[in-house]
Amino acid sequence: MKNMIIASTSTIYGSGYLEYLLPTLNDFFKNIKTILFIPYARPSGISYNEYTNIVAKAFSKIDIVVQGIHQFDNPNIAIEKAEGIFTGGGNTFELVNQLYRHDILVTLKKVLENGTPYLGTSAGSNICGVTMMTTNDMPIVYPPSFTTLGCIPFNINAHYLDPIKGSTHKGETRETRIKEFHVFNNTPVLGLREGSWLEVLGNKICLCGNLTARLFQKDKEPIELESGGLRF
Amino acid sequence: MKNMIIASTSTIYGSGYLEYLLPTLNDFFKNIKTILFIPYARPSGISYNEYTNIVAKAFSKIDIVVQGIHQFDNPNIAIEKAEGIFTGGGNTFELVNQLYRHDILVTLKKVLENGTPYLGTSAGSNICGVTMMTTNDMPIVYPPSFTTLGCIPFNINAHYLDPIKGSTHKGETRETRIKEFHVFNNTPVLGLREGSWLEVLGNKICLCGNLTARLFQKDKEPIELESGGLRF
Repeated sequence: MKNMIIASTSTIYGSGYLEYLLPTLNDFFKNIKTILFIPYARPSGISYNEYTNIVAKAFSKIDIVVQGIHQFDNPNIAIEKAEGIFTGGGNTFELVNQLYRHDILVTLKKVLENGTPYLGTSAGSNICGVTMMTTNDMPIVYPPSFTTLGCIPFNINAHYLDPIKGSTHKGETRETRIKEFHVFNNTPVLGLREGSWLEVLGNKICLCGNLTARLFQKDKEPIELESGGLRF
Repeated sequence: MKNMIIASTSTIYGSGYLEYLLPTLNDFFKNIKTILFIPYARPSGISYNEYTNIVAKAFSKIDIVVQGIHQFDNPNIAIEKAEGIFTGGGNTFELVNQLYRHDILVTLKKVLENGTPYLGTSAGSNICGVTMMTTNDMPIVYPPSFTTLGCIPFNINAHYLDPIKGSTHKGETRETRIKEFHVFNNTPVLGLREGSWLEVLGNKICLCGNLTARLFQKDKEPIELESGGLRF
């Protein structure tokens, strides 16, 4: 039975890394002592070790020890044995590229379906959806596929941003981009604003945090979902 | 000998489609009567016909007739016979996908190297670079490759945006994304702000418009290039 937290961002404005989520994580991970960290998304290209150190420092506040998946000889066995798993943010293309390169997507999906507690933030949340086709990231590497875990029956758009009123910029808004996605694809897309996260327990999905989230469905007007109310 | 205009955007704030470029285009296309339009990028998913009609209306102001590449039985022959070519903006992933699907990338590169006048805006400019890996667009389709025309020895970042001072948003800035690109790639990237364009004549490349452009090179500090001064 799935047991996942899928967050828009690791960090909200004016707050430390994972700080706003720590009370939730303290409860969510209360039965485990170690977490396997997947650092493949490498924000700003930092090394796996640097990234793992940042994460270890945050989790030390709730007495959880963090080990990077790169520190294991066999990443598939590391995933199978993990008490809990966290995939951090960064570049979704590189994250997905490495998931395929290390051939761990199938194992990761299996343990998540079987209930290993999972936290994803940003890119680590994007991979929970059906595809990574609604990421905001730059395609800095070419992954072998855009297909991701499909642990939820829709796609995530992390760091969802509303159109900026009075903007003079002519690049597409986030909403325009997601509508373009629906010209070619049927998968619903949930725009998760910074500070929102999903709690997935089995097939029940709950929107948490203080904000609404914006649900885009093909050929329908987008709707705002209230916190606490999401069901798929 | 190459003869290209590579523009950040088709449209600047407060102005009509291609309006700010028309005086330049009137001169650039002065010897031709027809333009072949490549509508594959489909902004907001509009149809090829709708998109071609918008472009035809703009070019009618400088007495040029526009034909969409989709109106020809053989797109490769259409490209070879074209007096001039324009690729419009929209989604770069879908544009590149269709260029591969119709197998026209090689022919397009050949005629551009041989001097067929070319205009690109936004996505149509991204494809002039070495790869499409510095697009801002959403990966709504999976193209067979990210390799593009390579008519210039660097990549374009269209609609380049400076970091917004005082922003509370925690998603990556454009500069951060381009720096992440350089963790994995060596190709220089030119951030072209809206209102800037490149004029390419043979191997001479000139930055036009009133703004500076931001050049990113691996392991170097970004630099601002003055209008008129670019050479590669």
